[in-house]
Amino acid sequence: MNFHTRKWIKPQDLNPNQTLFGGRLLEWIDEECALYSIIQLENPKTVTKYMSEIDFRSSAREGDIIEIGIEVVKFGSASLTLKCEVRNKMTRETIIMVDKIVMVALDENGKPKPHGKTRVEFVKDRLADK
Amino acid sequence: MNFHTRKWIKPQDLNPNQTLFGGRLLEWIDEECALYSIIQLENPKTVTKYMSEIDFRSSAREGDIIEIGIEVVKFGSASLTLKCEVRNKMTRETIIMVDKIVMVALDENGKPKPHGKTRVEFVKDRLADK
Amino acid sequence: MNFHTRKWIKPQDLNPNQTLFGGRLLEWIDEECALYSIIQLENPKTVTKYMSEIDFRSSAREGDIIEIGIEVVKFGSASLTLKCEVRNKMTRETIIMVDKIVMVALDENGKPKPHGKTRVEFVKDRLADK
Amino acid sequence: MNFHTRKWIKPQDLNPNQTLFGGRLLEWIDEECALYSIIQLENPKTVTKYMSEIDFRSSAREGDIIEIGIEVVKFGSASLTLKCEVRNKMTRETIIMVDKIVMVALDENGKPKPHGKTRVEFVKDRLADK
Amino acid sequence: MNFHTRKWIKPQDLNPNQTLFGGRLLEWIDEECALYSIIQLENPKTVTKYMSEIDFRSSAREGDIIEIGIEVVKFGSASLTLKCEVRNKMTRETIIMVDKIVMVALDENGKPKPHGKTRVEFVKDRLADK
Amino acid sequence: MNFHTRKWIKPQDLNPNQTLFGGRLLEWIDEECALYSIIQLENPKTVTKYMSEIDFRSSAREGDIIEIGIEVVKFGSASLTLKCEVRNKMTRETIIMVDKIVMVALDENGKPKPHGKTRVEFVKDRLADK
Repeated sequence: MNFHTRKWIKPQDLNPNQTLFGGRLLEWIDEECALYSIIQLENPKTVTKYMSEIDFRSSAREGDIIEIGIEVVKFGSASLTLKCEVRNKMTRETIIMVDKIVMVALDENGKPKPHGKTRVEFVKDRLADK
Repeated sequence: MNFHTRKWIKPQDLNPNQTLFGGRLLEWIDEECALYSIIQLENPKTVTKYMSEIDFRSSAREGDIIEIGIEVVKFGSASLTLKCEVRNKMTRETIIMVDKIVMVALDENGKPKPHGKTRVEFVKDRLADK
Repeated sequence: MNFHTRKWIKPQDLNPNQTLFGGRLLEWIDEECALYSIIQLENPKTVTKYMSEIDFRSSAREGDIIEIGIEVVKFGSASLTLKCEVRNKMTRETIIMVDKIVMVALDENGKPKPHGKTRVEFVKDRLADK
Repeated sequence: MNFHTRKWIKPQDLNPNQTLFGGRLLEWIDEECALYSIIQLENPKTVTKYMSEIDFRSSAREGDIIEIGIEVVKFGSASLTLKCEVRNKMTRETIIMVDKIVMVALDENGKPKPHGKTRVEFVKDRLADK
Repeated sequence: MNFHTRKWIKPQDLNPNQTLFGGRLLEWIDEECALYSIIQLENPKTVTKYMSEIDFRSSAREGDIIEIGIEVVKFGSASLTLKCEVRNKMTRETIIMVDKIVMVALDENGKPKPHGKTRVEFVKDRLADK
Repeated sequence: MNFHTRKWIKPQDLNPNQTLFGGRLLEWIDEECALYSIIQLENPKTVTKYMSEIDFRSSAREGDIIEIGIEVVKFGSASLTLKCEVRNKMTRETIIMVDKIVMVALDENGKPKPHGKTRVEFVKDRLADK
């Protein structure tokens, strides 16, 4: 699993109990899956269709740094299934784990649109091919 | 299921495809479950522990009004299991459905704390009893 | 008065004195009046035109849950006059009260547009009539 | 009336009708009155107690620049009464006018605390006196 | 240098060390330069092109009030060079100083567009001339 | 240079000209430098002290994905000097470049505190050493 995006837990990310607000964490996961899928499928109109069960294993506190990891599970014809883990950057303790997040590429009318991708690609290779 | 909190989809709630950003929706659901549980369990230190699979059935657009419904599934000893549906207020079309959201009441050390509740209570009855 | 939308006071809703920032409260009231009017008048282009005097009776603190109540005062030809109360969900103490908020339905050119409504309607009845 | 703080209307300040969200405007007014009072009364624990009626005269659109003006109406023993006008910076058209906003200085227990001020002071004079 | 816009440091403006988040401060400076330039150049499509080195001299804490000052350094043909200082309103201590911020007026295609301005103008004079 | 954190440009990140708001970009850079330094220096109280000149080379639009790269320039006794580049993830076009950002580790009284670090470390190695 590759961990890219990092977040620094600031006051506006806390719930009134002074731990990371779960809703904020879900928002960050959803954004990371969306942008990862857009890069892979080369279709900006890619949306979240399904998330499997979510287990909140541990929390985070103000000042903690977390990182969000994504791994491809499967390429469908118009979809991409991802696995996501968020962990504490300093201790590597898992905060949340979602085994299956299904993202779907859409056409201009909002209907699923085959993306023709079957494996993870790197932007640098795409640019080199041009 | 009782529908309480309503949201008006504004520009800051959209993804770049001009539909409701899924992360924002998850944030709203998490907040609603948290506050519903705090009211029922009378413990402000109540956190999200688990969410079952999430199916994004339809989306919403700028200017739409949505409402968030909560229903109690089960009272555990330190937990409360909820069901949540978000729907379009005007058309009643379901936007998202989560069958099981487990909230846990914590003590001061962050350990599960039995809440002694076994059924839904209404604040007005509690106040009348005083 | 019917109380629907609920808010959980989080760190980002506080002023530097650690009580609910008054500006945030006014923002929430304005949003609730807007969406209530849009539902009743079935016109998404409904805006706030006037608010009568506002008395900040008590405040709220981090972790408090508040609820926002709306009551119709009068249906005008292009307007809807509302009364709004915000109270603490757990204690029912009134936080703020606004006796008259005038919302106006507009046409595409931003001019008042008669809405033809004379009484509160429920979405479920509208849907049943179809 | 002195106009100080200026705001640039950005996408996140709009309502779904693409005009300035009224709730945002009220939030800005409340913040400006709070900081003006804190400067004058030299008490950081100064809160909004009352606003007289608010007339939304015109709106603003994305990209507009507005400025917020404050004028002292009266010094009370623990309070300060302000008048506030928000106008379009380029056209000077009035957007909103509030004739009376009562701010109250509080002590550590949240009770009104006499401030001993009777007239507008300038920070430069205070610093020169030291 | 004229100081206009004022900000009240609220919880959502802090970093996890409870001082003003530097990123928020840079955001405020950029907005102030943008709106100042738009007013002077009478072109809403004015963007930040360059900032000279930034020295964070002191910080600010929750509840502090800061003010942002702008001074014109030079009018170019399509650009405007500004100097910016942010200081604590109550103590006049400098928080940040940026000697040169170059703003550029653009045409509809995003190319530099001569603005024809050579000196600071006041909106009241422009309105009087009409 | 290693590129980690990625951002998806959403409506709330735009200026009224519908391009990425420069202030938001500066906010993101500052956050990334802060968290990178905290990880390296193992001191959560690390703040931005200085930024060298900033050249806004190109902009970004709604829906674009950008990535933020950081490279260590020098370890000082209490400081860490970084270089930062933000580029478009899909095209690799540079958006902004800052050659020197000086971060300083502080002690509990806000004074510079030697960190004893002389080279980039990886968290996995630190954890393996335990």
